[in-house]
Amino acid sequence: MRILGIDPGLNITGYGVVEVERDRCVYIRHGVFRTKPAQARLDRLLYLRDEVRAIAVECGATAGAIEAGFVGQNMRAAMALGEARAAALLGMADAGLQVAEYAPALVKQTVSGYGRGEKSQVAEMVRLQLGLKAVPTPADAADALAVAITHWAHARLGAL
Amino acid sequence: MRILGIDPGLNITGYGVVEVERDRCVYIRHGVFRTKPAQARLDRLLYLRDEVRAIAVECGATAGAIEAGFVGQNMRAAMALGEARAAALLGMADAGLQVAEYAPALVKQTVSGYGRGEKSQVAEMVRLQLGLKAVPTPADAADALAVAITHWAHARLGAL
Repeated sequence: MRILGIDPGLNITGYGVVEVERDRCVYIRHGVFRTKPAQARLDRLLYLRDEVRAIAVECGATAGAIEAGFVGQNMRAAMALGEARAAALLGMADAGLQVAEYAPALVKQTVSGYGRGEKSQVAEMVRLQLGLKAVPTPADAADALAVAITHWAHARLGAL
Repeated sequence: MRILGIDPGLNITGYGVVEVERDRCVYIRHGVFRTKPAQARLDRLLYLRDEVRAIAVECGATAGAIEAGFVGQNMRAAMALGEARAAALLGMADAGLQVAEYAPALVKQTVSGYGRGEKSQVAEMVRLQLGLKAVPTPADAADALAVAITHWAHARLGAL
């Protein structure tokens, strides 16, 4: 199973890809897609949808995972996050992936052993978990890897 | 020009289609797409995206218009609205439409002559504007026709 994890956002969407080898979770790739506030809203959503679909196909992902909830800022930010989330979800679906959703607190709990972990803590735990030499950056890509790891951990539990 | 207007929502998305004949705006069709909270989020978004794309193609729409803002409820509602909005926007884009966005207050102002019109007032003004015998229902579909009329009114001003 090759898992594409997504941490959605309108300005910056992180992605992280891991491969499950028996009971190990192996790092494949991570990065981000950015759009600019000056672009038309629809152009930003089309770009995110198409890039997510493309990375899923390019990496040969067979499963998708995405953050489900939201971190409270304001209504406008919540709606923008919803738009980015939908674009990413539809991109993964268009690539033929089944997509699982995980609440941010669950993702942090899974990779760091307890909830409410700091951003830097999540990135460091992702680094340790995947045996990387450096902490994956930016934070959005580290979070996306954390979501992918969470899907691996839960699929593993479900398989017992 | 045939305009597809959309009033997006996760539970219920209204659509309304009008045809511009010289300086007249002629009613073609209206209705709603519904999804259920019990469905998976992605299934609901896929359904909305695909139905919006299908109605755009089926009606031969050449332009799209959608409500841009949000009516304040709470963060969760704002994010759900964002998701539905993105699904509808992507559906229209997939059908090849250029899409314009109009703030709810502007839509109400355009069809009823001043802002903050009541829902029933908007529907009645849509009825009068399009010369319909009965008020279009449900309210989401009437709002979608109002968005389409707004696009016609603004395109008309722009053409002067």
